[in-house]
Amino acid sequence: MTTTDTPVDNGVNVQALLDAREALSVAPDAAQFQWRATCEWVNGTHSHSTVEGFSGLMEEQSHKKVFNFDADHPEVFAAEDNGATPVEFVLVGLASCLTAGVASVAQNREIQLRSVKATITGDMDVLGILGGDPEVRNGFNGINVHYEIDADASPSDIEALVAQSQKRSAVYDIVTNPTNVSVEVN
Amino acid sequence: MTTTDTPVDNGVNVQALLDAREALSVAPDAAQFQWRATCEWVNGTHSHSTVEGFSGLMEEQSHKKVFNFDADHPEVFAAEDNGATPVEFVLVGLASCLTAGVASVAQNREIQLRSVKATITGDMDVLGILGGDPEVRNGFNGINVHYEIDADASPSDIEALVAQSQKRSAVYDIVTNPTNVSVEVN
Repeated sequence: MTTTDTPVDNGVNVQALLDAREALSVAPDAAQFQWRATCEWVNGTHSHSTVEGFSGLMEEQSHKKVFNFDADHPEVFAAEDNGATPVEFVLVGLASCLTAGVASVAQNREIQLRSVKATITGDMDVLGILGGDPEVRNGFNGINVHYEIDADASPSDIEALVAQSQKRSAVYDIVTNPTNVSVEVN
Repeated sequence: MTTTDTPVDNGVNVQALLDAREALSVAPDAAQFQWRATCEWVNGTHSHSTVEGFSGLMEEQSHKKVFNFDADHPEVFAAEDNGATPVEFVLVGLASCLTAGVASVAQNREIQLRSVKATITGDMDVLGILGGDPEVRNGFNGINVHYEIDADASPSDIEALVAQSQKRSAVYDIVTNPTNVSVEVN
């Protein structure tokens, strides 16, 4: 760990998170959160989604504002490209989850970050989603995340930061492990 | 299936997709796509991601424009709520993927859609990500998708539409099955 003259500040309130962990450990019902989105079909493969409310701490919660997202397929799929593709939303979710984790763990370990950039790629054989080959899965064959991190720490401490972020990442868990999805109509 | 005077038009060019399936089945290298995002840390748990380039059909491709996304944690996590949470991005990806599939399958089955709305929820015990209980997973305990669909079709045909969309959905596969993620630094 590097000694600096000024306190490490990555903008993460680690003490509040440690306090929350302690408080929620003895009040497990308050730790039950529900995250939500609504998605309305626009036309073709274009849809518009909104994110606003969620629940947690035993009550309804709300973001400061409504977040809006357009999703679509690109022109090479004979669509209008009115938004990122659904699978790219997953990549954004994974990269942003790991990056928030890097900042949080760095704060907890008193490592000052200067810059963090993730480049994330997901390889896919589209014969799966097109129904062209039953042996090909619909999703990614695999995902790679490449981090460039500039921080007041040794290369091995930076690697350990990223490893700890993976260990506590919600989206990393969602992508690498199965989750049950129930779908109902009307 | 309902007979209508006007041709069914959900805005999906199904013939182009069927042609693509046939063409890519005999040129499997062209079916290899790579989807990408870049994510830069801003401050705290706030990051900014961009989606623009991808590859497929044996060459570099690009969206018509750059898509920009801010992700953050909400104020109840002592953060600034500058964007949707990473896990909400996954919900948007899943809902938009299934919805694009509903429109595509409806077109292929000559079912005219009037409206499609998905409400998606993901339940999470945040003691997992807080490191408060090693028995609790970081990701969702489960996801529920509720569809309200108004279409020229019987309830059972509408249910079959949604089921077929699940069967061919990239994000449904990603969420319900494991995907390998490799992470490297610098």
